[in-house]
Amino acid sequence: MPVNYAEPTSLLPVPGVRLGVAEAAIKKPGRKDLLVIALDEGTRVGGVFTQNAFAAAPVQLCRERLATARPIGALLVNSGNANAATGAEGLAAAGATSAAVAAALGLAADRVLPFSTGVIGQQLPVSRMVAAVPAAAADLKADGWLAAMRAIMTTDTVGKGASRTVQTSQGLVTVTGIAKGVGMIHPNMATMLAYIGTDARLTAAATQALIADVADRSFNCVTVDGDTSTNDSCVLFATAKVGVWDVDDQHEDYPLIAAAVESVCRELAHAIVRDGEGATKFITIKVGDARDAAEARLVALSIAHSPLVKTAMFASDANWGRLAMAIGKAGVHGLDVAGVTIALDEVPVIEAGQPHPSYRESLGAAVVAKPEFTIGVGLGRGTAETTVWTCDFSYDYVKINAEYRT
Amino acid sequence: MPVNYAEPTSLLPVPGVRLGVAEAAIKKPGRKDLLVIALDEGTRVGGVFTQNAFAAAPVQLCRERLATARPIGALLVNSGNANAATGAEGLAAAGATSAAVAAALGLAADRVLPFSTGVIGQQLPVSRMVAAVPAAAADLKADGWLAAMRAIMTTDTVGKGASRTVQTSQGLVTVTGIAKGVGMIHPNMATMLAYIGTDARLTAAATQALIADVADRSFNCVTVDGDTSTNDSCVLFATAKVGVWDVDDQHEDYPLIAAAVESVCRELAHAIVRDGEGATKFITIKVGDARDAAEARLVALSIAHSPLVKTAMFASDANWGRLAMAIGKAGVHGLDVAGVTIALDEVPVIEAGQPHPSYRESLGAAVVAKPEFTIGVGLGRGTAETTVWTCDFSYDYVKINAEYRT
Repeated sequence: MPVNYAEPTSLLPVPGVRLGVAEAAIKKPGRKDLLVIALDEGTRVGGVFTQNAFAAAPVQLCRERLATARPIGALLVNSGNANAATGAEGLAAAGATSAAVAAALGLAADRVLPFSTGVIGQQLPVSRMVAAVPAAAADLKADGWLAAMRAIMTTDTVGKGASRTVQTSQGLVTVTGIAKGVGMIHPNMATMLAYIGTDARLTAAATQALIADVADRSFNCVTVDGDTSTNDSCVLFATAKVGVWDVDDQHEDYPLIAAAVESVCRELAHAIVRDGEGATKFITIKVGDARDAAEARLVALSIAHSPLVKTAMFASDANWGRLAMAIGKAGVHGLDVAGVTIALDEVPVIEAGQPHPSYRESLGAAVVAKPEFTIGVGLGRGTAETTVWTCDFSYDYVKINAEYRT
Repeated sequence: MPVNYAEPTSLLPVPGVRLGVAEAAIKKPGRKDLLVIALDEGTRVGGVFTQNAFAAAPVQLCRERLATARPIGALLVNSGNANAATGAEGLAAAGATSAAVAAALGLAADRVLPFSTGVIGQQLPVSRMVAAVPAAAADLKADGWLAAMRAIMTTDTVGKGASRTVQTSQGLVTVTGIAKGVGMIHPNMATMLAYIGTDARLTAAATQALIADVADRSFNCVTVDGDTSTNDSCVLFATAKVGVWDVDDQHEDYPLIAAAVESVCRELAHAIVRDGEGATKFITIKVGDARDAAEARLVALSIAHSPLVKTAMFASDANWGRLAMAIGKAGVHGLDVAGVTIALDEVPVIEAGQPHPSYRESLGAAVVAKPEFTIGVGLGRGTAETTVWTCDFSYDYVKINAEYRT
């Protein structure tokens, strides 16, 4: 059960984007596990990808194909198999399956981006996938977002999607996004796929810059377990259907469109944490009064990744000693604990490195018993701040990950 | 149940060291939670301490007192309360309780080192502890090691201790050590206390250098959950009872004594992992063919800290995809996965970044089903190597840590 999140029941179509799903029996028979996204001519595409050195074969192909100036015409996504650590055969499989989509849609092969998510280290069932491509192509439709959202799920308990509209000088712009991911979620794009479409007329450069910037402030600020997958990808496509003038990052409409894209990405990123493997709490970690954003982030992630903090939160135990431990071990050079403050929501817990005179166990316990709360930390040495979102660490996290392949 | 480890039933006395325990009802009534270790005049003492910025009050006092040239005459250890994040009052409490030991033994107050382990952020029950000191002093005896070992336990399921003897040019030297710790165990000395006594005639400088060096190759190479406590301390005391000539690090006996001390520390460090919270497997991680020891360690700890690897090991699932993920995310600059090898014990799993032709799931599964095995990784870019020991991540880890304070 996600923490305060329900699967959307409708998503707005984005003119210029059509989506179709099919069943390739990749992992389990009887479920849609193949998604094709077709983009009208003139669409501009930007993407950000995993930093993991074992980047999966499809990620390698995506990077190559986005690096050329050839416009992207379609995306192919499969769930159930990550096509990672599969060597030359895996690269060939990513090429063959995306070529099948290109053939079905009448595109050059290098105009299709492939994506995979699922188990690492097994070869893709190429023939089953290729055989399923025509069905996905036949299923292409503008209102295919909900079905697409479900086709990319792996251990997700709910689909994740969001839509926004924003009035710009050239007309109403729509932004719709879908994402999958519940574990191995960490800054640097862990097992997470996200596809965001808009009909805004963003330039190609603005499309790439926007998704890189927004990913840094949304998907790269959430963490479930600190692990980083081999396959994470986040792609923005702008179909340029609205208006007649291109929108670069100096255009008056850019901040409006950027805000709508960021709002969608943040909702998707939060949904991933809310549906985090075994999660029972949605925790916001704000670190302020830091010398720079980097040290604020170091402390926020030290707290977010500490198994001792996460298990205490699961138990609704306001064990702030573990918060102090996580702050102290973060590696901030020359940190003077006498300047450190800790608060749980509005309750001051630590001041000057020791318990606040007003603090009572019952006050902290009341905060962490809630399904959502904020851990606020002040480092007392500057003005920089950062926010990270995470979840707790429960029996079910172990259960889900111990039984993933069995 | 620790993995292949049983509590020792005897430990060798070390001439010049006497140990006494008492009950101060610090956390639970009815158990010995106070330990005094009395050292004969002439003993040389060295120590290494937590790197956590929230270093506990006793750690601060220890550092101060070891920095002066005043010889240490006694140690005071309590379990049940960490005296960490307790501010000025906590510092005063560490001073008052160690002063009580000094008074009981007729020592100057600054010749006693205090140590605490347990819950963070609560003030020490000073009066109960001071009241219990005379009983601990009255209990002082050379064969008090086993009782001492048990008095310092917190969530440990077994006491940890080891003894060695070694013939030197000046006679037979004894080394006996005790340790506690099962979680928050990580390089940089996580909730771990270790006391190692020897009757060797090490110089003060050699005593300090030896324990710093040995801790780096034993306690700092084990990890349970990557968390780092506020209280970790490891102390070596050399009573100088054997021989008449001082042993510095150039002396012919030094390597013999150092090897015995390292052997004791490694057994204690392994015992901590074997008794790791919820551990069901003892896992050795060897990373070789690295450019330098630092990058080998980066990769070894990335594997050892990955919740996804640790839960797979708990499930006896040879999910080497997660090993590849952990290697890839370690942050080794410019790592070429085509040079990476992975083996489980003697079974080659990955070669040139993809599955070895001979690898079968059943071969890997047979290895990880064992209670002890080795994950071997080659980075294919140098000759440096390192070894780290860790355990798996089970339901019981969550249970123990979620219920610690309840």
